Amino acid sequence: MNASTRIENALRSALALGEGAGRPPRLSAALHHAVFPAGGRVRPQLALAVARACGDSEPALVDACAVAVELCHCASLVHDDLPCFDDADHRRGMATVHRAFGEGLAVLVGDGLIALAFEVIARAPTLHPERLGAIVRTLAQSIGAGRGLVAGQAWEQEDVVSIGRYHRAKTGALFEAAAVMAATACGHDAGPWRRVAAAIGEAYQVADDLADILGGARDLGKPVGQDLTHDRPSAVRSLGIEGAFARIEALRGEAEAALPECAGRGHLIEWLGRVVERLLPAAQRPARAANWA
Amino acid sequence: MNASTRIENALRSALALGEGAGRPPRLSAALHHAVFPAGGRVRPQLALAVARACGDSEPALVDACAVAVELCHCASLVHDDLPCFDDADHRRGMATVHRAFGEGLAVLVGDGLIALAFEVIARAPTLHPERLGAIVRTLAQSIGAGRGLVAGQAWEQEDVVSIGRYHRAKTGALFEAAAVMAATACGHDAGPWRRVAAAIGEAYQVADDLADILGGARDLGKPVGQDLTHDRPSAVRSLGIEGAFARIEALRGEAEAALPECAGRGHLIEWLGRVVERLLPAAQRPARAANWA
Repeated sequence: MNASTRIENALRSALALGEGAGRPPRLSAALHHAVFPAGGRVRPQLALAVARACGDSEPALVDACAVAVELCHCASLVHDDLPCFDDADHRRGMATVHRAFGEGLAVLVGDGLIALAFEVIARAPTLHPERLGAIVRTLAQSIGAGRGLVAGQAWEQEDVVSIGRYHRAKTGALFEAAAVMAATACGHDAGPWRRVAAAIGEAYQVADDLADILGGARDLGKPVGQDLTHDRPSAVRSLGIEGAFARIEALRGEAEAALPECAGRGHLIEWLGRVVERLLPAAQRPARAANWA
Repeated sequence: MNASTRIENALRSALALGEGAGRPPRLSAALHHAVFPAGGRVRPQLALAVARACGDSEPALVDACAVAVELCHCASLVHDDLPCFDDADHRRGMATVHRAFGEGLAVLVGDGLIALAFEVIARAPTLHPERLGAIVRTLAQSIGAGRGLVAGQAWEQEDVVSIGRYHRAKTGALFEAAAVMAATACGHDAGPWRRVAAAIGEAYQVADDLADILGGARDLGKPVGQDLTHDRPSAVRSLGIEGAFARIEALRGEAEAALPECAGRGHLIEWLGRVVERLLPAAQRPARAANWA
């Protein structure tokens, strides 16, 4: 089974937990709307790539980790799109959850997806239940108010913001969690994988900032120009467009250099290259800068 | 140390995780506002009472369970108070989180408290890490979209609602989680404790519905008449006022009958009685019904 099929199957199984006669039907529909159809699934893909490099010795627990990070990512998108933040009408080319189902259900969908992420991990069959504590803790911190997604979003509401801290919390934390959880599930030292994931996460954030300037709305399935509109810190505003492209290349190199000796190292380097390329806006030449004042 | 001191200390330690230079300062203030000063702390009190009855052999893990259920309870209050649900201005006699800090931070506070609940459990020192899976699963389900808090709140947005299912999800789930998590932490069979907690949870919900009709706003620290205003299912609307009081008495009996043989059984029965009494509105005589059309 290829990674995408594995991820979509695992996500469908997760969403089916507690579905049926017992669950409020509109909530079920809204949860499904938040998770399908697939976006890039970059975080669970990273989890599976790390697991493969670590022998993939606990596949059910790895699947649970991959699903959990994607559910938390989807939760953060649903809440970030709310009128009190981005007030976004579209996401992945569809109506955002609050536009389709109302604000109340959108708040509940985010909460429900976070809870489901932990439930999926706790339910995963594993020969190594002693690994659960570290996995749960990593996921919780990647969402949390200290250095996680919640902190990242909250930095947008502060007057003084370090762009590095903002990006590490808002994007890096969940990338790092994906890699650390997968390595931990397989019983490997997570330290090197955290560094690999931190570089990929930052590259992803810089690419996202570029796409916000350069990409057509069709590429992202969401409106462009949001960073300027919401006066958010942006790598492009700090580095310029050419500087942002150079930063992505440097980060690709950092990720490769941080890779530990492992099975399929060559495959992983190829995968990294493909991920970074796919991140870049469709028209990625700095010449497009002319369109941007 | 008495139970209240133990709970407040554990909550303060939990909130301090990740505080300091690294966390967005307004978010920290909003998190604190959501958890302090103490409300009734009924759920963590229940967790500690069950733990005592089960020998309290894992006090750090029990504290984590007690804290986790209270943090999730506080999260649900913050989100339920949002303009897209109850649009409440006051809670525990203070401004609600969104009134004091804005809607965006209120959404993030709820998310952050849920994540923190799981972090606290995952960090708890324990000689029995194999118990974590069941504890995390119980907590996740008590919040979740199947039968948890999220499902309960979502039932308010459906056309057809079973009041039993609504109350079990909205209130019962977290009471049951408090008892089940505490018993599990101590290595005891959680089954009987789930039944005890289900009865207490339902009594609590009926008392809350009574207070919504009979209580002065000062008793609750929140506005009364919310069930009618929001056309919510209510035990008082189903049973009438006298019926609701009778139901609370019956549930107290059910809770006592479900108590397993355990250390300090007599103490626990006394505690149950005190809890139920404290739940009732200040002026608890059915004669007050005259004020209610």
